[in-house]
Amino acid sequence: MSPDEQAIRNLVALWHSATIAGDVESVLRLMAEDVVFLVAGHPPMKGRGTFEQGLRRLLATHRVESTSEIQEIEASGNLAYCWTTLNVRVTPVAGGDSVLRAGSALSILRKQDNGSWVLVRDANLLAPAS
Amino acid sequence: MSPDEQAIRNLVALWHSATIAGDVESVLRLMAEDVVFLVAGHPPMKGRGTFEQGLRRLLATHRVESTSEIQEIEASGNLAYCWTTLNVRVTPVAGGDSVLRAGSALSILRKQDNGSWVLVRDANLLAPAS
Repeated sequence: MSPDEQAIRNLVALWHSATIAGDVESVLRLMAEDVVFLVAGHPPMKGRGTFEQGLRRLLATHRVESTSEIQEIEASGNLAYCWTTLNVRVTPVAGGDSVLRAGSALSILRKQDNGSWVLVRDANLLAPAS
Repeated sequence: MSPDEQAIRNLVALWHSATIAGDVESVLRLMAEDVVFLVAGHPPMKGRGTFEQGLRRLLATHRVESTSEIQEIEASGNLAYCWTTLNVRVTPVAGGDSVLRAGSALSILRKQDNGSWVLVRDANLLAPAS
């Protein structure tokens, strides 16, 4: 496994563990300031600040647990993509039914000048699951 | 504009014109044999042959018209991504109402040994539109 692939695998693992722990600051360090999140049926969500607002609002009232299986990672120069299959469970902390979503995500990552990778574009193809 | 960006813009334009013309062979030349198409709520569609079957079945009974606006293209080495916003109208040739879908697509392209680019991964985030 190349150092780039290993670094991106570590990023994905940290993303999930930090989200489960409610550690928003650690999640934010994994993305570029100009990140864009794409989801069907909604306008593009642009910028780390917008993501942060949404995540903090969600985590104020819900627990988010996610698991991922990396299907592939390919890097060339300072660009990489990562295809993952995800399961995300969102549960109200006050009690109540969980909502489960599953499916693929296709993510674009960029290598920074310091050699670390950050998420820059993300296509979220999750759909309701049972 | 870099030669790589120009080549990918040409690929996107050809994809739409060939689809509207029902020229399946030309569309197939724009993708790798091991292409994967990702759509929410469906398993990944793997391989050019599977795509060909689906497109030929659709075009046997429908007219497909699409327009796209390229939001960005970035290439590094032999890898590139392209984010487009799309409008796709599918109309039964026997008559009847069109179905319109709109939204983003995030596509991964690979430069081949001969210098041309092909689609290798595609995340389709289109949703019903009116």
